[in-house]
Amino acid sequence: MNPLFLDALKCKNDSRPPVWLMRQAGRYMPEYRALRAKYSFLEMCHNPELIAEVTQLPLHSFGMDAAILFSDILVIPEALGVGLRFDEGKGPIIERPISTLADIQTLPSPSIPESLKYVADGIKLVKPQLNVPLIGFCGAPFTVASYMIEGKSSRDLRKTKQLMVRDPKAFSLLLDKIADCSIDYLNMQIDAGVDALQIFDSWAYFLSHSHFREFSLAYLNKILKGLKADIPVILFCRGSSIFAPQLAEISPAGISLDWQSDIVKMREQIPSHIALQGNLDPDILYGSHETIRKEVKTILNGMKDDRGFIFNLGHGMIPDIPCDAVRVLVETIKNSR
Amino acid sequence: MNPLFLDALKCKNDSRPPVWLMRQAGRYMPEYRALRAKYSFLEMCHNPELIAEVTQLPLHSFGMDAAILFSDILVIPEALGVGLRFDEGKGPIIERPISTLADIQTLPSPSIPESLKYVADGIKLVKPQLNVPLIGFCGAPFTVASYMIEGKSSRDLRKTKQLMVRDPKAFSLLLDKIADCSIDYLNMQIDAGVDALQIFDSWAYFLSHSHFREFSLAYLNKILKGLKADIPVILFCRGSSIFAPQLAEISPAGISLDWQSDIVKMREQIPSHIALQGNLDPDILYGSHETIRKEVKTILNGMKDDRGFIFNLGHGMIPDIPCDAVRVLVETIKNSR
Repeated sequence: MNPLFLDALKCKNDSRPPVWLMRQAGRYMPEYRALRAKYSFLEMCHNPELIAEVTQLPLHSFGMDAAILFSDILVIPEALGVGLRFDEGKGPIIERPISTLADIQTLPSPSIPESLKYVADGIKLVKPQLNVPLIGFCGAPFTVASYMIEGKSSRDLRKTKQLMVRDPKAFSLLLDKIADCSIDYLNMQIDAGVDALQIFDSWAYFLSHSHFREFSLAYLNKILKGLKADIPVILFCRGSSIFAPQLAEISPAGISLDWQSDIVKMREQIPSHIALQGNLDPDILYGSHETIRKEVKTILNGMKDDRGFIFNLGHGMIPDIPCDAVRVLVETIKNSR
Repeated sequence: MNPLFLDALKCKNDSRPPVWLMRQAGRYMPEYRALRAKYSFLEMCHNPELIAEVTQLPLHSFGMDAAILFSDILVIPEALGVGLRFDEGKGPIIERPISTLADIQTLPSPSIPESLKYVADGIKLVKPQLNVPLIGFCGAPFTVASYMIEGKSSRDLRKTKQLMVRDPKAFSLLLDKIADCSIDYLNMQIDAGVDALQIFDSWAYFLSHSHFREFSLAYLNKILKGLKADIPVILFCRGSSIFAPQLAEISPAGISLDWQSDIVKMREQIPSHIALQGNLDPDILYGSHETIRKEVKTILNGMKDDRGFIFNLGHGMIPDIPCDAVRVLVETIKNSR
C-alpha cells in the first residue's frame, strides 16, 4: 500500500508529501455526474456497491494518495430519525428540525451499527480494492447539531446560536447525543477496515474562541477518547486558521487547515508530532494552470522539510472545477521531488 | 464632548472603556422601524435630515460614547452608476453587476463630492447636535467590489473570486477605482466634520492570507495614504481574527476585531499604539441579561488595563435583538469603574 499518507500522519514522511482532496469524489467529475443521473445522492450513500465505486473514482482519474469514503455527515441525523432529503440544487433538508429541549430529549437512541450497516458494508467492499489508505469520517457534533437545528444550510446559524446562548444545557445534551452516535459510528468504521479518520466541523467558524472550546472542542475530545483502536484522526474545521492551537490541545494525529492562514506560520504554533493538512484555497482551481502550479508550489516550498505535511484544499472541491485543474494540482505535487 | 472614544483611539484613555456598536442605528430599534415604515432604506440614506435624525437615535436611547453616521457602504457603487436598490427582506441588489474587464473600464469617474453631497449635508446637520464624536465610514474596496460583482449578498463570493483568480489585473483595476472614489468620499466626510473614520471589509474572510495582502490590505493602505487630514481611522474586517497582524502593518489608529478570537491574546500581537475595538459575539445579545453581563465582563476584565480599548461587537447588530439587551450591555460597561 502507498505509505505516504499514513507516514505523514505519523510525522515520519521523508518522501514527497501525500495529496488527497476533500470531496475528491464529487460533481466536478463526469463519471460521478453520470452515476448521479441514475441515482439520487441518498441512494448512492445508502448503497454499498455505489459507495465502493464512487470512493474509487478520483483515484482512477487522478491518483491521489488516499481515498475517502463516499458518504455524508448527515447519515447520523438520518439515523436519529429527523428525516433527511436532498433537494436538487438546494442541498440537504432536515424534515423535522430540532428546536426545543423536548425535541432533544425525545430523540431515539438508535443502534448505529444496525442503522448505518450500509456504510460498514461499503467499507468492506472497497477496502480490498484499494492500494492507498482509506479515510473514514463523520461530522463534528457542533456542525451536525447545527444542521439538525437549522434544517438546511444557513448563512448565519442564527437558530443554532440562539439555542446555544439561551439554553446551553439543552444544546449540550444534543451535542452529547450526537457525540455518542459518532463514537459508535466511527468504531463501526474502524471495525470495517478504515485506516484513518477525519472529523469535519464545517461550521465551527461561527463560534467565538470560548464557545468553540465549550461546544466544539469538548465533544471532539469526547469522540477521540471514545475510539476503540489507536487509529490516526484528523480534525478539520472551518475556522481552524483561528482554532488550530485549541485543536492541538486534544492531540489529534493531524489538523486540517482551512485556507485563510499561512500554513507555514501555523506550523510554528502546532507541535511537530501533529500532522498538518492543507490548505490551498479551493477557488485557486478556477485559475490558469500556471496560477495553480504557482500557488501549489508556494505551499510545497513552505512545507518542504515538514515530515508531517499532507497536501489538501482548505475546504471541499467546488462542483464546477475543471478536471484538468485537479490533474495539474496532483501532478505538481507528485513531481515535487 | 465626551472624550472617551477619541482618547482610546489615541491609546491614552485612563477612564472606563468607551462603547459603541456597529449598526447601532438599525432595525432592532422601534424608533428606526417607525421611520422605515414611512421611508425606504435608500430614501433615508439620501436625505440629510433623516441621516441626522437616525444617527442620533441610539444615543438618545442607550447613550453610546460615539455616533456613527447613518449611511450604507453601497452609496459608492450607486455613484458609479451600477444601479442600487434594496428589496425588502433580501438585502441590496446591484442592478448591473460587473463581470468583465470592459465593464470595469467603462465605469464612469464620478465627482464624489457632487454625487454624495447628501452625505456631507447630513454630517453638517448632525455634527453640531452631538456631544460625542462622529464616526464616518466607507466600505473597503474588496467588499464593495464583491457586491458589485456578485450583484447581491453571497455565501461564497464565487464570481468575485473567479474574476480575482482568472483576471487579477481586471480585478485590481476595479479595486483601484473604488479606492480612488473612497478617498474622495472620506476626504469629503472629513471636510464635513467627522471626528474619526472606520473602513468596513465585511467579506475579507473569504480571502487567503496572501490574497488578503494583495487584494484587501494594499487598497486599505492606499486609502489611508490618500486622506488629507491626520484623522484616526479604524479598520474592521470579518477575518480580522486572522488578519489583524497584517492590518497592524499599515498602522491604522485602531483595528476592530470580529468575534472569533480572544481579544486579550490578540493584544499580544498588536502594538500598544494601535487601539483595539471589539469583540463581543453579536449573538450573545440573544441571551439572558445574566449571560450578557457575564460575557461583557469577561472582555472588560481581560482588557482592563488597556488604554487603547474600545468596546464593540464583533459584527453589526442583528435586527431582532431586544433593546433591553443593548441597555444591559451599555450599562455593564458604564458601571465598570
